[in-house]
Amino acid sequence: MRVGFVGLGTMGAPMARRLLAAGHDVTVHNRTREREEPLAAAGAARAATPRECAVGREVVFTMVSDTPDLEAVVVGEDGAVHGLEPGSVLVDMSTVAPAATRRLAGELAARGVAMLDAPVSGGSEGAENGTLSVMVGGEAEALERVRPLLEVLGRTITHVGPSGAGQVAKAVNQVIIAGTYASVAEGMALALRAGVDQEALLRALAGGAAGSWVLSNRAVNMLRGEYPLGFRTRLHRKDLGIALAEASDLGVSMPVAAYVAQLESGLVGRGYGDEDVSNVARVVREMAGIDD
Amino acid sequence: MRVGFVGLGTMGAPMARRLLAAGHDVTVHNRTREREEPLAAAGAARAATPRECAVGREVVFTMVSDTPDLEAVVVGEDGAVHGLEPGSVLVDMSTVAPAATRRLAGELAARGVAMLDAPVSGGSEGAENGTLSVMVGGEAEALERVRPLLEVLGRTITHVGPSGAGQVAKAVNQVIIAGTYASVAEGMALALRAGVDQEALLRALAGGAAGSWVLSNRAVNMLRGEYPLGFRTRLHRKDLGIALAEASDLGVSMPVAAYVAQLESGLVGRGYGDEDVSNVARVVREMAGIDD
Repeated sequence: MRVGFVGLGTMGAPMARRLLAAGHDVTVHNRTREREEPLAAAGAARAATPRECAVGREVVFTMVSDTPDLEAVVVGEDGAVHGLEPGSVLVDMSTVAPAATRRLAGELAARGVAMLDAPVSGGSEGAENGTLSVMVGGEAEALERVRPLLEVLGRTITHVGPSGAGQVAKAVNQVIIAGTYASVAEGMALALRAGVDQEALLRALAGGAAGSWVLSNRAVNMLRGEYPLGFRTRLHRKDLGIALAEASDLGVSMPVAAYVAQLESGLVGRGYGDEDVSNVARVVREMAGIDD
Repeated sequence: MRVGFVGLGTMGAPMARRLLAAGHDVTVHNRTREREEPLAAAGAARAATPRECAVGREVVFTMVSDTPDLEAVVVGEDGAVHGLEPGSVLVDMSTVAPAATRRLAGELAARGVAMLDAPVSGGSEGAENGTLSVMVGGEAEALERVRPLLEVLGRTITHVGPSGAGQVAKAVNQVIIAGTYASVAEGMALALRAGVDQEALLRALAGGAAGSWVLSNRAVNMLRGEYPLGFRTRLHRKDLGIALAEASDLGVSMPVAAYVAQLESGLVGRGYGDEDVSNVARVVREMAGIDD
């Protein structure tokens, strides 16, 4: 298919590369233009703006950092909307505010362009290996048209509802992750202070009601006080901000998520934002004096 | 083996029954004596006191509700300690304070009796099916002597350290469960208010970093606002109290666990203590006005 791809960061670049490798005709654009070069070397065309990147394309992907970036590349002065043709589909894979997604989808619909919100989980490793989990909001018909492309990028493609529902699902994902990390960190701090056999403890917990991806994959690092990536704290903090704002708009109170957001704000402010989000354990360990 | 079993509640009764069915010579005692009758009908001998229940036994199990109950049945006036013979083993499968366990183990050791703390997870279903997870603290040698009996009761028997370590592991288990339930409840409240396809959402989340036993086994009930057992809120609240006291003794701060304990205190006080602990979602839903 004729594909445009806007946003070649840690996630976007390997995704665009996979689409190229799968034989699609891919044009790329990135605000910092040098990032386009490795993709061009691999066979992609380059576009000077999101608008140019959208001209003549059946599907345009966006993968940017936050809501304002998405608004700029879609409806800004040189935004994709000015290049997209009626009947084309914009697939936004960024994590942004559900309300902004719905607003943009409305603007695009008025011009005959379908928009899907399709945020992902699985990190840069998932982007490279095509094993992302993609949560899709929008019209089922548009999803079916782009599904072959999404299947190049992800292992599970789940349609979770109308426009914005993909972003809501991602927000729910990040809320659950927040509290699970904090709880496992509290449990590990107690274990460290009480002095149990750590390996045996993790073995005993893993199969029961305390079991989780976080426990299986991050508890050992928390016990060691090491936080290799994984998923950056500052990005999870950004996502939690979106989730908390959405919850606030809907009148939903999420004290645990709000508390973890505060822990993460402190970590980001102290320069730990590029560590893995499991570093909430750093604060919990500090509160227990484990590294004194 | 010649076995005594003290405490025939929801957990203890099926455990004693399994030991009988496995061919062991079992004497039982329960404070409310009528509870002994079904076990006696199945072939157990009855003892009028914990002391009597311990006489001539190689191994005595205790399965009671809380720390004071354990102290009463072990070192009270008619406690097992007065009947236990040197060389025997007391296996306490209750969930109690680690400090109390260590104190009792010390008193028993002075009389030549080994004590293991061996709290379990897996609920009454696990007790009936012999699929409990058993976290054992104490001497490895004593554990090896009773392991054939524990294997009748549980599927995984994990030695997690010296006396008290089993109780610490159980405390860590309950701390992690607390925050995981609360986080999944917050995520589900957001999902309910935002209106996504619930079944698709759970499918999308289950395989990723938000995945947990709680998400897989309790999120559907939280979405429905139904809280069938499972594990009683008042018992989890009791266990969290033990974990928070232990944490406090050790100088470990656990704000998420403390917050969930407060939610559970409210639920117990309002008469919901016999519902499943997933009813923390009841409060989270109330805070979001979902059932208004």
